[in-house]
Amino acid sequence: MTAITLSAAAKVVEAATAKATEIGQPMNIAVVDDGGHLVAFARMDGAIKASIDISTKKARTSILMNAPTAALMPLVQPGAELYGLEQLSGGLVIFGGGMLLTEGDVVIGAIGVSAGSVEQDISVAEAGVAALGS
Amino acid sequence: MTAITLSAAAKVVEAATAKATEIGQPMNIAVVDDGGHLVAFARMDGAIKASIDISTKKARTSILMNAPTAALMPLVQPGAELYGLEQLSGGLVIFGGGMLLTEGDVVIGAIGVSAGSVEQDISVAEAGVAALGS
Amino acid sequence: MTAITLSAAAKVVEAATAKATEIGQPMNIAVVDDGGHLVAFARMDGAIKASIDISTKKARTSILMNAPTAALMPLVQPGAELYGLEQLSGGLVIFGGGMLLTEGDVVIGAIGVSAGSVEQDISVAEAGVAALGS
Amino acid sequence: MTAITLSAAAKVVEAATAKATEIGQPMNIAVVDDGGHLVAFARMDGAIKASIDISTKKARTSILMNAPTAALMPLVQPGAELYGLEQLSGGLVIFGGGMLLTEGDVVIGAIGVSAGSVEQDISVAEAGVAALGS
Repeated sequence: MTAITLSAAAKVVEAATAKATEIGQPMNIAVVDDGGHLVAFARMDGAIKASIDISTKKARTSILMNAPTAALMPLVQPGAELYGLEQLSGGLVIFGGGMLLTEGDVVIGAIGVSAGSVEQDISVAEAGVAALGS
Repeated sequence: MTAITLSAAAKVVEAATAKATEIGQPMNIAVVDDGGHLVAFARMDGAIKASIDISTKKARTSILMNAPTAALMPLVQPGAELYGLEQLSGGLVIFGGGMLLTEGDVVIGAIGVSAGSVEQDISVAEAGVAALGS
Repeated sequence: MTAITLSAAAKVVEAATAKATEIGQPMNIAVVDDGGHLVAFARMDGAIKASIDISTKKARTSILMNAPTAALMPLVQPGAELYGLEQLSGGLVIFGGGMLLTEGDVVIGAIGVSAGSVEQDISVAEAGVAALGS
Repeated sequence: MTAITLSAAAKVVEAATAKATEIGQPMNIAVVDDGGHLVAFARMDGAIKASIDISTKKARTSILMNAPTAALMPLVQPGAELYGLEQLSGGLVIFGGGMLLTEGDVVIGAIGVSAGSVEQDISVAEAGVAALGS
């Protein structure tokens, strides 16, 4: 298998939602497949609408860059090697909250979380990632 | 309440998914709020990827036009009154599968379904609409 | 003077709104200047949201084509001379409801009306045009 | 009610226009509903045309982020948490002049003002916000 199933994606969204509820921060949560195409999405009540696009693009960015979005931040600063990267490939998100979903060492998709602080977004994304292993 | 909750949207997606399974046609199912912003989305295993955008735009079109998307088809034909409508407002979908979600007579959101024949898309969207009333 | 003032544009919107109220059809009404740039806009309560873009583009189309939008419809049909025109210049509207605003024989702007039938849109646009002369 | 009426939006635009006149700076003033869709707009004579888009996007950004646009500026600087935010969600405006319009604690829309200095834009937006309470 190389693309995440809806069943697995729903499990990821559910775990991320539970974590968001636990920390008291409503979130937008997106899961994409190994091609960056949306599989499952949920916007929790009260989560900001700007994060619909941001969460989806975080997941897509992880697939396109084959990396968590948090890894990009130092690379795109003024003076750094990839300055301007965020405007390419249809818009990349360069702050944390996008993470790869893997099965063994195969990438099967990615999760993007947005609406809280970057730290909160990452912790909720990690909860989604962890759900796949269980 | 004028915007659908995630809980209600999830119920709509679940009912639509069940109907899609019943007719043996995997679907993309999107639910948006009363402003056309995505609340919940599911792409069933095997459903075509083009329909991610189409299902979402069907739901959004229903909100923007305050009508089911199937109502638009005769109006936009060559020689008809609204020929060319589909390229306006960021792209409107003019074939069936987008329907309003209401509470009493208040629009609280819309569902968009895409990946099957138009007849199948509409029947799955109707199953989603029906779930709200129960 | 070659560009409509806000004061004149407001008078146009007011007259159009009054006509829309009279015929019982809430409308989106846009007035642009002689460069096609928005000067005044009103969306009446209950008017569909898709028509925000459509009304504005109708007014802009009148400026860009130097003609009422209704004049374009026969020219863009399959087999006709300007087939495909509607997708050019950032999106042109080819059905009625966009009309030039003139002072003497000088174009000073345009009005675009959308949300009703094309006949209704035109009658409301005409009321806006008439307001300038009075 | 969760979406601002045209009547209320017109009152907001009128108060903002009065303030702009008072400080001698012609402005673009946009009011959107709770979904970020335009309800009313006025460009005062002499106000720059670039601000048509900017004022509208300021109002829309306030809705999408559920915050005044001025709050975003420190967050998107090089090295800061949300660096790159402005290019997401269809283009967000990250400088002051966009503010939420509320009724009690319910967001019913937003105002965006643009054409002056940021300080001027904010003071005119504030005049618009204040008009709703009276």
